[in-house]
Amino acid sequence: MGLFWTKTKKFVYSFDEGKGVNKYIIGGKWANLAEMMSLGLPIPDGFTVSTEACELYYQNNKVNAQEVLDQVELKLQKLEKTMGKKLWNSQDPLLVSVRSGAAASMPGMMDTVLNLWLNDESVVWLANKTWNERFAWDSYRRFIQMFGDVVMWVEHRHFEEQLQKVKNEKWIKNDTDLSVEDLQKVVYLYKETIQKNTGKMFPNDGREQLTMSIDAVFNSWNNDRAIVYRKLNNIKWLIWTAVNIQSMVFGNMWETSWTGVCFTRNPSTWENKFYGEYLMNAQWEDVVAGIRTPLEIAELERQMPDCYAELVDIYKNLEKHYKDMQDLEFTIQEWKLYILQTRSGKRTAAAAVKMAVDMVKEWLIDEKTAILRVEPEQLDALLHKQIEVSAKNSAELLTKGLPASPGAGVGQIVFTAEDAHEWAQEGKKILLIRTETSPEDIQWMHASQWILTARGWMTSHAAVVARWMWKCCVAGANEITIDEKSKTLTIGQRVFKEWDILTLDGSTWEVFAGELKTVDPELSWDFAILMQWADKYRKLWIRTNADTPNDALMAKKFWAEGIWLCRTEHMFFADDRIKAVREMILSDSLDGRKKALAKLLPFQKEDFVGLFNAMEWFPVTIRFLDPPLHEFLPTEEEDIVELSKDMNVEVSILKDRINWLHEFNPMLGHRGCRLVISYPEIAEMQTEAVISAACELAKEWKQITPEIMIPLVWFKQELDFNLEIVHRVAKSTMEKYGIEVNYTVGTMIEVPRWALTADKVAESAEFFSFGTNDLTQMGLGFSRDDAGKFIKEYVNQSIFDKDPFQTLDQEWVGQLVEIAVEKWKSTRPNIKLGICGEHGWDPASIEFCHRVGLTYVSCSPYRVPIARLAAAHATLKNDK
Amino acid sequence: MGLFWTKTKKFVYSFDEGKGVNKYIIGGKWANLAEMMSLGLPIPDGFTVSTEACELYYQNNKVNAQEVLDQVELKLQKLEKTMGKKLWNSQDPLLVSVRSGAAASMPGMMDTVLNLWLNDESVVWLANKTWNERFAWDSYRRFIQMFGDVVMWVEHRHFEEQLQKVKNEKWIKNDTDLSVEDLQKVVYLYKETIQKNTGKMFPNDGREQLTMSIDAVFNSWNNDRAIVYRKLNNIKWLIWTAVNIQSMVFGNMWETSWTGVCFTRNPSTWENKFYGEYLMNAQWEDVVAGIRTPLEIAELERQMPDCYAELVDIYKNLEKHYKDMQDLEFTIQEWKLYILQTRSGKRTAAAAVKMAVDMVKEWLIDEKTAILRVEPEQLDALLHKQIEVSAKNSAELLTKGLPASPGAGVGQIVFTAEDAHEWAQEGKKILLIRTETSPEDIQWMHASQWILTARGWMTSHAAVVARWMWKCCVAGANEITIDEKSKTLTIGQRVFKEWDILTLDGSTWEVFAGELKTVDPELSWDFAILMQWADKYRKLWIRTNADTPNDALMAKKFWAEGIWLCRTEHMFFADDRIKAVREMILSDSLDGRKKALAKLLPFQKEDFVGLFNAMEWFPVTIRFLDPPLHEFLPTEEEDIVELSKDMNVEVSILKDRINWLHEFNPMLGHRGCRLVISYPEIAEMQTEAVISAACELAKEWKQITPEIMIPLVWFKQELDFNLEIVHRVAKSTMEKYGIEVNYTVGTMIEVPRWALTADKVAESAEFFSFGTNDLTQMGLGFSRDDAGKFIKEYVNQSIFDKDPFQTLDQEWVGQLVEIAVEKWKSTRPNIKLGICGEHGWDPASIEFCHRVGLTYVSCSPYRVPIARLAAAHATLKNDK
Repeated sequence: MGLFWTKTKKFVYSFDEGKGVNKYIIGGKWANLAEMMSLGLPIPDGFTVSTEACELYYQNNKVNAQEVLDQVELKLQKLEKTMGKKLWNSQDPLLVSVRSGAAASMPGMMDTVLNLWLNDESVVWLANKTWNERFAWDSYRRFIQMFGDVVMWVEHRHFEEQLQKVKNEKWIKNDTDLSVEDLQKVVYLYKETIQKNTGKMFPNDGREQLTMSIDAVFNSWNNDRAIVYRKLNNIKWLIWTAVNIQSMVFGNMWETSWTGVCFTRNPSTWENKFYGEYLMNAQWEDVVAGIRTPLEIAELERQMPDCYAELVDIYKNLEKHYKDMQDLEFTIQEWKLYILQTRSGKRTAAAAVKMAVDMVKEWLIDEKTAILRVEPEQLDALLHKQIEVSAKNSAELLTKGLPASPGAGVGQIVFTAEDAHEWAQEGKKILLIRTETSPEDIQWMHASQWILTARGWMTSHAAVVARWMWKCCVAGANEITIDEKSKTLTIGQRVFKEWDILTLDGSTWEVFAGELKTVDPELSWDFAILMQWADKYRKLWIRTNADTPNDALMAKKFWAEGIWLCRTEHMFFADDRIKAVREMILSDSLDGRKKALAKLLPFQKEDFVGLFNAMEWFPVTIRFLDPPLHEFLPTEEEDIVELSKDMNVEVSILKDRINWLHEFNPMLGHRGCRLVISYPEIAEMQTEAVISAACELAKEWKQITPEIMIPLVWFKQELDFNLEIVHRVAKSTMEKYGIEVNYTVGTMIEVPRWALTADKVAESAEFFSFGTNDLTQMGLGFSRDDAGKFIKEYVNQSIFDKDPFQTLDQEWVGQLVEIAVEKWKSTRPNIKLGICGEHGWDPASIEFCHRVGLTYVSCSPYRVPIARLAAAHATLKNDK
Repeated sequence: MGLFWTKTKKFVYSFDEGKGVNKYIIGGKWANLAEMMSLGLPIPDGFTVSTEACELYYQNNKVNAQEVLDQVELKLQKLEKTMGKKLWNSQDPLLVSVRSGAAASMPGMMDTVLNLWLNDESVVWLANKTWNERFAWDSYRRFIQMFGDVVMWVEHRHFEEQLQKVKNEKWIKNDTDLSVEDLQKVVYLYKETIQKNTGKMFPNDGREQLTMSIDAVFNSWNNDRAIVYRKLNNIKWLIWTAVNIQSMVFGNMWETSWTGVCFTRNPSTWENKFYGEYLMNAQWEDVVAGIRTPLEIAELERQMPDCYAELVDIYKNLEKHYKDMQDLEFTIQEWKLYILQTRSGKRTAAAAVKMAVDMVKEWLIDEKTAILRVEPEQLDALLHKQIEVSAKNSAELLTKGLPASPGAGVGQIVFTAEDAHEWAQEGKKILLIRTETSPEDIQWMHASQWILTARGWMTSHAAVVARWMWKCCVAGANEITIDEKSKTLTIGQRVFKEWDILTLDGSTWEVFAGELKTVDPELSWDFAILMQWADKYRKLWIRTNADTPNDALMAKKFWAEGIWLCRTEHMFFADDRIKAVREMILSDSLDGRKKALAKLLPFQKEDFVGLFNAMEWFPVTIRFLDPPLHEFLPTEEEDIVELSKDMNVEVSILKDRINWLHEFNPMLGHRGCRLVISYPEIAEMQTEAVISAACELAKEWKQITPEIMIPLVWFKQELDFNLEIVHRVAKSTMEKYGIEVNYTVGTMIEVPRWALTADKVAESAEFFSFGTNDLTQMGLGFSRDDAGKFIKEYVNQSIFDKDPFQTLDQEWVGQLVEIAVEKWKSTRPNIKLGICGEHGWDPASIEFCHRVGLTYVSCSPYRVPIARLAAAHATLKNDK
């Protein structure tokens, strides 16, 4: 064999040979273990059969080469030596585990097989050695079952049947009540099962067990599940798997053996203080099961001072090495400490922030690392109300919907807008539950604790407005039925009435009966510090989408650097304005419309004065009227009748007009700047309001630079038509005030055509903003209001990798943005570009925006911190 | 001046110097005249001041350089010599005309000024010379008016006022009743008007008249109208204008003078036979006005044999030279023949075809030229019924709508589907007049003579279906109101009832009261010959959009080379099918749906057997179900009640279901292959029907290769999901028949995202077809059903260059197609690519398809000849 040794390729690696070897050869798990070994940690010894052996196995038509088996044999001998045990020994039997070990973990691959080398003889030796006959036989029957299942392909249920048979015979309910004799009978039946189902005997020989297991791991590389997984996840770089073989250690070998878990920092306070729990004479499962009360790790110092000192030494080293809080599993077998696993400890958002900042203070990591330690999405939890964890245990779950807006809330059911208004005035906490919402419901939404809809989805009207208002919302809960007449809400079999109380969890999309306790969000100093660091590194500017001074103030609190999207339509729904809006829409003469617009002008001007004042010197981008006019008109019979009285217009005329305005596909209809082509007077009024507001503040020595954004353009001629109006009215308004105001005019790119003609856009527009919501909807032919009905099947069939409304679809919107940015810059190199819309706070989308060189991203006020952190991540990950 | 002659640049060209000089220097008109001169034609002599002089004029701050004026002077002297007249001569005064002469004609530029050099003296000489005092003074007053208007900028209305004053004084109604004295008074008043309005005298001196006119032409180059025109039409290549100065000739100088018009071929029969008319002692206006009956040209031979012989010689030469039928204007002044103009004669579609084929037979032109002589769009008229031209003279025009589908028709008004059905059965010619149409109206549309809608446009449902059915249709006639209850149709002030007769002209979009005489289309042998030539040269394959065997047979008559788009949804609206479709939609279990689909299967199979049989060996591409399911359900209360009885389902449940299926933006909703993700059983049924049909024909030894097209895909995973179903069901169906059938599966690219990921599409699809309608709608965010309401303003504001639904928008769809073709070919180089949809017969779009290398275009059966000719044009124009 010595001859082969020098001639053949190295296929098998022990831990001490693993350091520095590519993980694509020895597998990811093994590389980690090798790293721990190189730190001098006591790891149960073992070896790995490399991915190159796997490749050879497939080249040889699924037969392992003799040279591979020879190398394995040598390593087995070495293992006996380092562990001081023998594979076939009546005193101290050596058992091993077998695991698959690709470069990345992958579902579908063969799982662990523990306790290899157990057979009818060694089980007796194990019983003697552990003084625990029951443990030995239970381990043996588990081993046969595992081996039979994953190596010999006998379906799990066959074993379950046999076990049940024995339990039935003895009237036993729990596995733990099986006696040694029962377990011996189970072992016998299991072996029989294997023979019946495969025609083969369960292998008694350890070597045969091992080679069969190695083959099974290699074969599992190409089973259907693994292939599908790789295909679905587009994993092409991952080739072949290794096989990890490691000696077993037992924490249940009498009172000299222990097993436990510990954290390098306290997992509830997250202070830098060692924390752990352990059990004597136990296996890891016992700690998890919580049957016995574990001891605090400090106890160990008293009981086993040497082991404790070693453990402390190890944890300190590990934290220093990985520069992160570690979660360790250890076993002490007959006074000897083994580390079974270490990994970065899971943590809550608050903990992640605290530890990142602490570790910088402790000089363990630098600011950049600290920033990258906190995932931007995690901050969401910090910024929202949550249901107290324990409160859910006894709660009655009514139904589950689709994600819309996170948070949690409690309130009372109300069925009409009037009641909602009245109750909210009285200080009651009310809810909005609807089949779907429309812009008419804005007031009600504002007054509500939370919103629940039967239709829709992440990006339906309810969801978008809820997130904008920072309300908790669940959409697409299609099991609910609202009957406004009888004032009942039915969820499944349960019927609720007015005044009944419900609780919503926007993070898990659950609806509960009654009131559940909620916890308010709290922002720490550590959070503020981390945000400051993020600001230091990010290159993208973060603005906000805000339509009211309140929103603007809130966003400024989170350090938004201006408003990038002020949707002026939201200013028109208040009671004192909607009337004038409707008057304008219903008028059929230019004069009539101008008269109605003149009533809106002072309101609109005041809105802008408020916004400009709130944002102080920060820039404000105002988007001109965008939705189709029919959104401002009522659709219900009684509302139409009321409006007819209000406006002194016959109901039939009103209905004719509403019918005439009806659109088959409003998203692709008469809206955005198309309204201005028909009714230039709307843009005239809005321009006058913006410029007047800026002029009035200029009189108070406040320098305002309004940015006017024209929506839904698709032809340069359209934009030019709008520009002419804006410049003309701006000029006359400034002349009226005798004041010069700097203002710029830009456009939104939300119509796909517009993106592909960005070089022409740039001839006229001074800035532009990608409306990625509409680009997604139009480019995918996918209305977010209608998607709720069929989106579930898309998720079930895994047709989406990611929801394109949450994470920018880089193959579509991404390509368009890249093409547009390039074309745009060919005309106007120094231009401000941004995105607004749902993607403005999604970290993956923000990273994309950073990469293609946009100037701004914009999101709702509460999401500004997430965007700030994500932008910092984008810089740190991409600018090297 | 001889000194200058050699030193300075040439700014002024006479005809004999014009040949070969760039038309950008001497202008387009002059280049034509010079060409005629070079053929030896007797043209009234003249000269042109070049565009370079115009440039110099602007460089000199709008002053003409002396050297230019000097060169003009020399040419004036030469003109006197060649015309044998004198500019200042009491015997035979020379008068000239001045015209602008850019390289292309352009509205907004200065128009013609005739009779320059007339003044208070020369008017008398002219009177003497022509023995016609009235003519002389009328010419003078017209000259002053023209000169005052276009050279001296006095508004036209000022002259009108003066003229009216003189007429009022004398109680005269018509200008022709003015006496010489009256005209002399008018001349006086006109001169006074000019002085009052400009502060300047009307120039009596001919040279001053001329230089002022030249300045006026140069100035008009930069007037607002001309600038706007160039901007709107994106004319950047056209720089500066020339000024054409030509001597006047008169056909009204006593009996020795004549004026007339002639065609080189007969303008009614289009035979190769000289044809013309003329008047003695007359001006051109007299021929046009039709006051005097003109003589046939053959008379001229008798009256002036020399002139006639010369004219015949000229017309033959001209046709040989231009290789096309010419339309000539001539004047004989005192026995001398002058040709004033020649141009290619206007012609009807039938004439164009006949002449093109004739001229090839006469060896005058070759086949390629003949093909290019007929504009593809012209053929439309050949293929449609037309209203007899004279019939319109006395007709009552009711309203005018927007273009939808050409042709003409007469029929009776009917208000309900039942009546329509019944009357049509009785053989009555009925109409469909609706606010808008929906797929439910298919039967009615089928039975109608023509369709008129209040909403919509070129690409609304009504228009698309009408063109598909080859029915005449006008859309967007928003002055009509239909009241189904009282069974009245109101158009403006007019009210119509059941049975009333209306006539529609789909080519002029007009609606007439009563019955107008129509003319049937007739296809000649010449047409067939021209089409054969076209087929010889075209490279694109022309297929058709056809859903029924009848359509397919019709298309084959026009030589369609297969079906590229069979819309299976159209097969489901017949009475015997819609019930099963509705049963499927209303079922809430898989079993229920499968049962309903099983009922549809035999129908669907028969449909395909019929189509395959009709197309024989030509390929048939079948698109699977595309529209949202709610399109198959009724919307009107009474229809719902009826359906409820039919289906034995409660009305409230039915309404709930219909409500649930309602979509905000159906175009972006649950349709196309999205339906299959939710209901795979639909694709299973359709696959079984297609493959069964092919198998059954295979038993009769007919080789069918069905092509299955999956619509509305946007993710590769979606297509793969569909492919799995098709291949699975195809396999089991073929096994059932024991027959192997070749079939292919492709996809439509109508979702913009899909186009940008064409490289991935190509991994799974074997062919694809661009759905350019949806690409346009989604890419422009522009629903064709809603556009009718605001499209007029877009046309008025000239925001469109061309309607993007009629002519493929090359900046958007074009870019996408180019990107997709490139990506696609990177994955699968030899692939069949095509387009289907409205653009499939538009010549400009076909040329684009040819250029980017598509394989097919497809259009409705009657448009196939247009597409064939357009494809030949594309080859001849692009492949050099």
